[in-house]
Amino acid sequence: MTDTLRPIALHVQRETILAYAEITGDYNPIHVDPEFAASTPMGGVIAHGTMSLNLLWQSIAATLGDDALHRTSLDLRFVRPVRIGDTVEAGGARRPERIDAWEVWVRNAAGEPVISGTATLVAA
Amino acid sequence: MTDTLRPIALHVQRETILAYAEITGDYNPIHVDPEFAASTPMGGVIAHGTMSLNLLWQSIAATLGDDALHRTSLDLRFVRPVRIGDTVEAGGARRPERIDAWEVWVRNAAGEPVISGTATLVAA
Repeated sequence: MTDTLRPIALHVQRETILAYAEITGDYNPIHVDPEFAASTPMGGVIAHGTMSLNLLWQSIAATLGDDALHRTSLDLRFVRPVRIGDTVEAGGARRPERIDAWEVWVRNAAGEPVISGTATLVAA
Repeated sequence: MTDTLRPIALHVQRETILAYAEITGDYNPIHVDPEFAASTPMGGVIAHGTMSLNLLWQSIAATLGDDALHRTSLDLRFVRPVRIGDTVEAGGARRPERIDAWEVWVRNAAGEPVISGTATLVAA
């Protein structure tokens, strides 16, 4: 039985963020308006958090199978913004003491967590 | 102080799902291959869970402000699939006993939860 989740990576470009806004209707200026975003504490445009979270979803499905998706309880913090040009990678490691619980993360290219949390497999 | 999160809705079309796959690289056949998806327990194509979750993110930002996003801890279950043609809506209600905790959901047009969980505002 595997003890790590298969890593899944994504390179985030400005076009990626704009397309994500279009699909979801999420045109928050922090994502799409560079001038506004630069004036906020974020200091510039950031990607939608759920875009990075999708990588974790892919990582769980690729490792544990599609049916794990509807048996997974996620406990998450979005701890760091993702910027244009960042490459982010999702992964996870089983908790040594818990067969059904995984420490999960999405990290930027510097290895810093952008999302961190726990995935717990529950009964279907 | 508001006790409900502003509802945010999205109508999910086949094109929405295909575009979401393209952005995220998530071409899991359960999302993009109708024939394959029909042969699985899902019984047909389902939308990416993080697409619906984004609505909840929008709902939190619209109600509590952008800075709430990086102070929010989410505890979630993806409880039901979202199908082509579904309209889903995110919302939330403050827990009466907890000023910093919200019951949150994304529901389909039938009012059934597709995502359900808790959002907790933590110190920045």
